[in-house]
Amino acid sequence: MNTTETTKNELLRGGQFLVKETKAEDVFTPEDFSEEQKMMRDSVKEFVDREIWPLKERFEHKDYALTEEVMRKAGELGLLGVAVPEEYGGLGMGFVTTMLVCDYISGATGSVATAFGAHTGIGTLPITLYGTEEQKKKYVPKLATGEWFGAYALTEPGAGSDANSGKTKAVLSEDGKHYSISGQKMWISNSGFCHTMIVFARIEDDKYITGFIVENDPENGISMGEEEKKLGIHSSSTRQVFFSDTKVPVENMLGERGEGFKIAMNALNVGRIKLAAASLDAQRRVIANAVQYANERIQFNVPISSFGAIKLKLAEMATNAYVSESASYRAGKNIEDRIALRIKAGNSHQEAELKGVEEYAIECSILKVAVSEDVQNCADEGIQIYGGMGYSADTPMESAWRDARIARIYEGTNEINRMLAVGMLVKKAMKGHVDLLNPAQAVAAELMGIPSFEKPDFSELLSEEKAMIAKLKKVFLMVAGSAVQKYGNDLEEHQQTLLAAADILIEIYMAESGILRTEKNAKRFGEETQKEQVAMSQLYLYHAVDIITVKAKEAILSFSEGDEQRAMLMGLKRFTKYQNMPNIGELRRTIAHKVISENTYPF
Amino acid sequence: MNTTETTKNELLRGGQFLVKETKAEDVFTPEDFSEEQKMMRDSVKEFVDREIWPLKERFEHKDYALTEEVMRKAGELGLLGVAVPEEYGGLGMGFVTTMLVCDYISGATGSVATAFGAHTGIGTLPITLYGTEEQKKKYVPKLATGEWFGAYALTEPGAGSDANSGKTKAVLSEDGKHYSISGQKMWISNSGFCHTMIVFARIEDDKYITGFIVENDPENGISMGEEEKKLGIHSSSTRQVFFSDTKVPVENMLGERGEGFKIAMNALNVGRIKLAAASLDAQRRVIANAVQYANERIQFNVPISSFGAIKLKLAEMATNAYVSESASYRAGKNIEDRIALRIKAGNSHQEAELKGVEEYAIECSILKVAVSEDVQNCADEGIQIYGGMGYSADTPMESAWRDARIARIYEGTNEINRMLAVGMLVKKAMKGHVDLLNPAQAVAAELMGIPSFEKPDFSELLSEEKAMIAKLKKVFLMVAGSAVQKYGNDLEEHQQTLLAAADILIEIYMAESGILRTEKNAKRFGEETQKEQVAMSQLYLYHAVDIITVKAKEAILSFSEGDEQRAMLMGLKRFTKYQNMPNIGELRRTIAHKVISENTYPF
Ligand SMILES: Cc1cc2nc3c(=O)[nH]c(=O)nc-3n(C[C@H](O)[C@H](O)[C@H](O)COP(=O)(O)OP(=O)(O)OC[C@H]3O[C@@H](n4cnc5c(N)ncnc54)[C@H](O)[C@@H]3O)c2cc1C
Ligand SMILES: Cc1cc2nc3c(=O)[nH]c(=O)nc-3n(C[C@H](O)[C@H](O)[C@H](O)COP(=O)(O)OP(=O)(O)OC[C@H]3O[C@@H](n4cnc5c(N)ncnc54)[C@H](O)[C@@H]3O)c2cc1C
Repeated sequence: MNTTETTKNELLRGGQFLVKETKAEDVFTPEDFSEEQKMMRDSVKEFVDREIWPLKERFEHKDYALTEEVMRKAGELGLLGVAVPEEYGGLGMGFVTTMLVCDYISGATGSVATAFGAHTGIGTLPITLYGTEEQKKKYVPKLATGEWFGAYALTEPGAGSDANSGKTKAVLSEDGKHYSISGQKMWISNSGFCHTMIVFARIEDDKYITGFIVENDPENGISMGEEEKKLGIHSSSTRQVFFSDTKVPVENMLGERGEGFKIAMNALNVGRIKLAAASLDAQRRVIANAVQYANERIQFNVPISSFGAIKLKLAEMATNAYVSESASYRAGKNIEDRIALRIKAGNSHQEAELKGVEEYAIECSILKVAVSEDVQNCADEGIQIYGGMGYSADTPMESAWRDARIARIYEGTNEINRMLAVGMLVKKAMKGHVDLLNPAQAVAAELMGIPSFEKPDFSELLSEEKAMIAKLKKVFLMVAGSAVQKYGNDLEEHQQTLLAAADILIEIYMAESGILRTEKNAKRFGEETQKEQVAMSQLYLYHAVDIITVKAKEAILSFSEGDEQRAMLMGLKRFTKYQNMPNIGELRRTIAHKVISENTYPF
Repeated sequence: MNTTETTKNELLRGGQFLVKETKAEDVFTPEDFSEEQKMMRDSVKEFVDREIWPLKERFEHKDYALTEEVMRKAGELGLLGVAVPEEYGGLGMGFVTTMLVCDYISGATGSVATAFGAHTGIGTLPITLYGTEEQKKKYVPKLATGEWFGAYALTEPGAGSDANSGKTKAVLSEDGKHYSISGQKMWISNSGFCHTMIVFARIEDDKYITGFIVENDPENGISMGEEEKKLGIHSSSTRQVFFSDTKVPVENMLGERGEGFKIAMNALNVGRIKLAAASLDAQRRVIANAVQYANERIQFNVPISSFGAIKLKLAEMATNAYVSESASYRAGKNIEDRIALRIKAGNSHQEAELKGVEEYAIECSILKVAVSEDVQNCADEGIQIYGGMGYSADTPMESAWRDARIARIYEGTNEINRMLAVGMLVKKAMKGHVDLLNPAQAVAAELMGIPSFEKPDFSELLSEEKAMIAKLKKVFLMVAGSAVQKYGNDLEEHQQTLLAAADILIEIYMAESGILRTEKNAKRFGEETQKEQVAMSQLYLYHAVDIITVKAKEAILSFSEGDEQRAMLMGLKRFTKYQNMPNIGELRRTIAHKVISENTYPF
């Protein structure tokens, strides 16, 4: 670790969570929100409960104007400028606060979540991150206040996951004063009401595309397709955008020529962790509604919340939401701290933010995948708890389910993000930014040695769980280490293995985050205050161990054989073994009891 | 087994699959369809490809009249009367053929699937099964030809899963000539265009409700709510139905007074296996579309079907569809054979059919759960393969996903069906219909003994897989046996354990069905013709072993402790151990290769 980059707490580099122990004191948790942050949260909540939630039905009926109106109101309250430096008309708040706003503003409908994310995350941020002083002065204040709205136009009919393959062209005019952009963009969120778009286009035969800030002016060769008919986020505007000789002044180029792909990818890093945040309050609201319904709905003369089948669901839903929160804010604060360190070290705010987020690109991908799948499952169980009523548009479950589905597709599909998470980690290791080699060799040596039969003392709260996390990290090192040895640079060709490794990595990060949050809170607020949180941390870990076992086994069976295979399977057994197995039924009952008696998501 | 009830093949009783070995020769497979059945299948396919699939978009736009029109055309072709005896205007075909029609007519849209299922399965069948000669003569011919349409009105706002708790009343008139029905029904499929409804109502303070055939006559106190706004099956009519002093002649009582709950439940048994069938062609169509898209869609200069991540999905989708088919037709033929046996033994057709289906109620619940979840996952992966286009209503994935969602809710939620499957099995054991006790005791004894270290000869095709199935059955007996011992009649209170046991049972039945089908076909058509089918059988089993391991462990940890727990965990390890672990990556590649090169679901 670079010694110029330490704060009073140990600040791990991105991906290092896998090889270094994180101390509970060093993680940020939702219980650490400052008074200012709590006020922010409460006022966003209040805004949503007043302006969005009661109008949910209208949002389901393709009321694009309503989304625009809500966005405008959010702008008036300053919510669109939370992340924007004060000098450009924003509130200049830290990364965690911007996540917090994104979290709570997104819970009621995916339409606002997407509009908000597209505007702030990918429509505005690239300008604050890469813009020139003039560009920032000209555009950012308008975007920060909601006077203008932004969009981000990267995808084309032939260029989705392969984002750099776009055919949109930018041709310099003879007088060198402007570029002329022609091409077709697709799936552009906010396109129906945006004033600016970050457009990516190729200059000549450049290897990489270039970014431009383009004002949305129909007189300037910009036209739009019809609104796409979509499964969900019904009031999020999504259109094709056609550029035909659209003239863009040269001073509107964003960053350098050929830097567009990097800009696009960096915008996506931030987009991904914000998308995770944007999938948190949706879970809380689904859980709150589901438990309220379950407490009211009588079948067989009792509330259905008294049935084990329903308790099981509520417990699992709450557990995933709790862990999602834990991991999202943990990573968010790492990013914030890294930015602060870089500023201290003399970086400009811009550069600091850029590098800060890039550092944690692995965590951003992990969170994007894990939390988007959690919110999907949460809504799915929400429907099931409502029974037939869950299938009705008159209850808030089915729209939550439809809206959640998009989060697994955009900002890079979950498959792409899974492979990225592991791929980036391997690259970091090769570059020497994270030392995986030594730990992996240590694991390999351990595999050859005789396992210790000592029984460690696990009397301390969550100590067995933390020992388990340490072992699970060895599983990842064992599997990924052997795979890299075997496939070398071809690893990407072997996507099944990459995907399995990614699931292992994801489960480790998520499970560890839940445990650390609980441990930290138990230490400061007392164990007795954390009974259900302990149960959730244990339950999540228990499932994580199962998932990791399944995925690791699958990978091992696919790429190894003979003695090597046997050794790894033995190692897998050793590294996934509990000394004291938890009582799963009991854990679920403990958690469910709390959710049911509080009649909401109470954590 | 009752010796009067054997055919030339061994015909197991419902639930006995768990304790008796089924021979490959004794299972019916889709490759056993007769010429007549194949013609039927092809003509239904042709009907769907002509009348339904091209109109898919209209079905998404709440075109209830279109559904009615398609149903009428289906009636003209005789498709509504496949299951109806010839004497009442039907085609009088066997159970398998009725499943086949249900399968292939349901693949294009859930709207038709639901309309068809509600009309034939629960709207008509209760009359053919329980009706008097007069009732059958009066109503069935009209329903069989589609001159009239039927509905089934059981659910009420306060009575869903607890179906017998309905408040709808039937009061006998003073002259004893009619009943007067008053009450409110909810979620009634086909209500918007039906001519008859099977209505369940309570007479006086009867313990059980009573069934009535009610003609839909607005002059007779019947009124309807608006069409429900639903997540999916957008052109299936679903309304509330209000009865206010609706007069029903006494001769329209269905079955005996107080027999309604039994009738309702028996109708649901048939409904459940038909619902499984109705979820098969939907999978085939999703897979066919997904692979065609994947073969055409280019990213990174290659068709996305060349990526391991996509191959993985296609392989898993095809495997689940193949196993779903295998299990559905296996059970369907058992029912058909059982009916034939009963007729031979002197039962009326009516009684034979009733008892035949009831016998396999466990399998019906298993299939309902497994196949409804398979089609959901299949559509979910279908969306993901399409990427952004999967989220668009212009491609057929998102409607498949929405439509699939209902199958997990109606005909008894999947939770209720899971618990029923195990509950019915335990009851059958207590009644002595299926001997679980002796096999369970044998397993308990085996657990105490020393495991054999002999290595069986597994050179024969699928022999290791079959040995594994035998062991997995022991897992079920071990877990369910101990749970029954521990909880006795309280087992139902312990729903977490019931649910885990149900998953074990389901996976055993499904995995075994795939293996037996493949084995049978390999024997007659040659192993070399079954390469991919062998791979699918192995892949499904491999996952089943993982699921069973996870679920059994969870249950064991929840209800046992100390030595007993240790013994069971040891047993679980023993009973889930492969001698030769398969190469999962290889299996998937083999399967995917076939799907991709045939550019459809080719099995
Ligand atoms: C509602 C909505 C809003 C959107 N908003 C915006 C926006 O505002 N701005 C914008 O620029 N874009 C936007 N998008 C586009 C979105 O980012 C893309 O849909 C997404 O990146 C996937 O690209 P694609 O749709 O072309 O799918 P494809 O790239 O064609 O992917 C199809 C399938 O192939 C898989 N795949 C692709 N490449 C590989 C590989 N190398 N290895 C393994 N598997 C692979 C994918 O995982 C997926 O399963 C939006 C999309 C939607 C649906
Ligand atoms: C589109 C649609 C079409 C339909 N068509 C028809 C039709 O044609 N005719 C008809 O009669 N009905 C129909 N239904 C009703 C359907 O059968 C019921 O919705 C279903 O049986 C579930 O009942 P419910 O909705 O009241 O849910 P509830 O019974 O209230 O269930 C809510 C939740 O509680 C759980 N639960 C309930 N009881 C228990 C228990 N004892 N233990 C554990 N968990 C429990 C359920 O599993 C579920 O998760 C239809 C429903 C829909 C949505």
